[in-house]
Amino acid sequence: MRGVLEVLEEIGRDRDSGGYVRDAWSPADLELREWFKGEAARRGLDLDVDRNGNLWAWWGDPAAGPGVVTGSHLDSVRQGGPFDGPLGVVSAFAAIDLMRERGLTPGRPLAVVCFTDEEGARFGVPCIGSRLLTGVLDPERARGLRDDEGDTMADVLRRAGRDPMALGRDDETLARVGVFVELHVEQGRGLVGKGAPVGVASSIWPHGRWRFDFQGTADHAGTTRLHDRDDPMLPFARAVLTARVAAERHGVLATFGKVRVWPGNANAIPGRVSAWLDARGAGERAVRALVSELTLGSGATVSEESWTPVVDFDVPLRDKVAGLLGDAPILPTGAGHDAGILASAGVPSAMLFVRNPTGVSHSPAEHADADDCRAGVTALSSVLEALCT
Amino acid sequence: MRGVLEVLEEIGRDRDSGGYVRDAWSPADLELREWFKGEAARRGLDLDVDRNGNLWAWWGDPAAGPGVVTGSHLDSVRQGGPFDGPLGVVSAFAAIDLMRERGLTPGRPLAVVCFTDEEGARFGVPCIGSRLLTGVLDPERARGLRDDEGDTMADVLRRAGRDPMALGRDDETLARVGVFVELHVEQGRGLVGKGAPVGVASSIWPHGRWRFDFQGTADHAGTTRLHDRDDPMLPFARAVLTARVAAERHGVLATFGKVRVWPGNANAIPGRVSAWLDARGAGERAVRALVSELTLGSGATVSEESWTPVVDFDVPLRDKVAGLLGDAPILPTGAGHDAGILASAGVPSAMLFVRNPTGVSHSPAEHADADDCRAGVTALSSVLEALCT
Repeated sequence: MRGVLEVLEEIGRDRDSGGYVRDAWSPADLELREWFKGEAARRGLDLDVDRNGNLWAWWGDPAAGPGVVTGSHLDSVRQGGPFDGPLGVVSAFAAIDLMRERGLTPGRPLAVVCFTDEEGARFGVPCIGSRLLTGVLDPERARGLRDDEGDTMADVLRRAGRDPMALGRDDETLARVGVFVELHVEQGRGLVGKGAPVGVASSIWPHGRWRFDFQGTADHAGTTRLHDRDDPMLPFARAVLTARVAAERHGVLATFGKVRVWPGNANAIPGRVSAWLDARGAGERAVRALVSELTLGSGATVSEESWTPVVDFDVPLRDKVAGLLGDAPILPTGAGHDAGILASAGVPSAMLFVRNPTGVSHSPAEHADADDCRAGVTALSSVLEALCT
Repeated sequence: MRGVLEVLEEIGRDRDSGGYVRDAWSPADLELREWFKGEAARRGLDLDVDRNGNLWAWWGDPAAGPGVVTGSHLDSVRQGGPFDGPLGVVSAFAAIDLMRERGLTPGRPLAVVCFTDEEGARFGVPCIGSRLLTGVLDPERARGLRDDEGDTMADVLRRAGRDPMALGRDDETLARVGVFVELHVEQGRGLVGKGAPVGVASSIWPHGRWRFDFQGTADHAGTTRLHDRDDPMLPFARAVLTARVAAERHGVLATFGKVRVWPGNANAIPGRVSAWLDARGAGERAVRALVSELTLGSGATVSEESWTPVVDFDVPLRDKVAGLLGDAPILPTGAGHDAGILASAGVPSAMLFVRNPTGVSHSPAEHADADDCRAGVTALSSVLEALCT
């Protein structure tokens, strides 16, 4: 199973940093999608690419469903680690191999899925594939989203040979998913504290992204007197510091991880600074309060790029899964996932987490031990077996 | 003369913003260089491209020199205006036309020069052409400078058909320059206050650029607790605010106009923030004090990318030029120029400024009135005539 991750390890890897850059529909992503198709073919699974570009590899006839689906995503945040996403897809194929080694045939159709553009690294909105599938992202809005090059998603899809007008809620595909199980590397140290290699998700915190546009007046850095300046870098800097203090006060998380300075000359006062706020927490009210406070205090024009309400995973399913794994720990997460989007759309969904010794994720330093990854595959195959019978 | 600037107005222009993007050796810059060669040929001037890529158009044999040189640059800051640079080159050709209309033949060789990469938009170091020519920039360091794409200057020069190993101090070319006069749009409102269309520079403030690298630890924005974070955005924000307060205290200018966030994901705590400080002022000690204070207080690794000591233009030449123009106002500037580099290298140099009604520069909003531009050409031709006889 680790061997399979090793097959992927050079795709989209930045040799200088060791981090992965696998934007949706980039050459690296297209290569990963081809790899997925090859894995499906090698196992005699039937490949289906839905209207939104999500990949499904079916064992058994999906029309005989609804079926059991497992998988994750293959795209990455920029400079991410090797596990976030691919571990769930690779483990899904490995779990099927394990079931076959045991001579099992599923009593209902079983699929491995690869959702498109989970991270939102390219167009700013995460979980695009599952949001379009379930209808929570308007296809017109999706088509108009722009990447850093200024290309719209419609342009990008067309160049990848996809029809952007096909995007949208896909009831036929969704009806095939009776239950969804996503395995993912943990993105914190919850399992380290509990001494367990595998855990089960209870909930996903409400979370969102907001774009803050600070407007100023571009001018020469060497000739414009301080009191004549309208430098947007100053209110941005104040917002960064305010966000941290407010996050502590509200007991939530707030991060400015992406910034664009326009025009970005070392010798010019910027005309505009755009910065993206990621905010999350256990309670929606506290997250909203933080964002309102920052919006009012910053002087920026603020637009909500995405919002995901709290997701409470299906409790009977969760307890069943945890029981199958010998009372695996049950824990919440602050990270968004396609499983959360499906759960919110009414699909019974569960998540398995594989222990992350440092808790680091969205970084080249992300890690999971080989033994824990194997334990994840074993756990996933047991869960799939139980769900398929 | 305005008609000539209009010929250039579509080259490297961003149609959305109206600003210019004319990085050294970009297609736009190469087109501007071809335009320069055409203007030289049209007037029967002898073109010379020196070892560092600066363009010289000679009227008369430069070997009979040392000669009189005028000109400026054609590259731009990103999203700059149409005047910064091109006005000096276009006015130089127009001044020659005016001298010829008057039936004048210079008593010593006269050249129009276009210096390469004055703004430093691409490689971070300004006045590269004149710094290499005069030997104040080490050619080995220049060859290794990288642009945003990670390409070295050596790569970029090679692709433009230039030999990067030819870079370096060029005594033969420098010996041809007996005196240098640069005409430039003013980048402040000094001439507005004095009610004059054209002024003469007294000095250039000492100025420099410093790169601040704030190191942190990249991690997931949704799962890393606030007190577990090492987020470099926070010390960067503090440095921005500290720089403003310290600049006021020291009576200097300080600007962070360029920022790079690594990896720059909306859902990841950055691992590194790099930001460029531009600092200038009338006194070197005050500028140095500001930079030291920020360096010590920021926790960043700081490297000096460029430093230009104060330039006091040749006083007899300055007074002669101002007298020729009917006691034109004499004023200092905070903006660096190739004329400053040549002056520091011992070449008697002078600068003419053309009034800027708003003072705005390094912005698409940069402006100069047509009448003032014409007055600039007339003034320049008078100065050249006097210097050539």
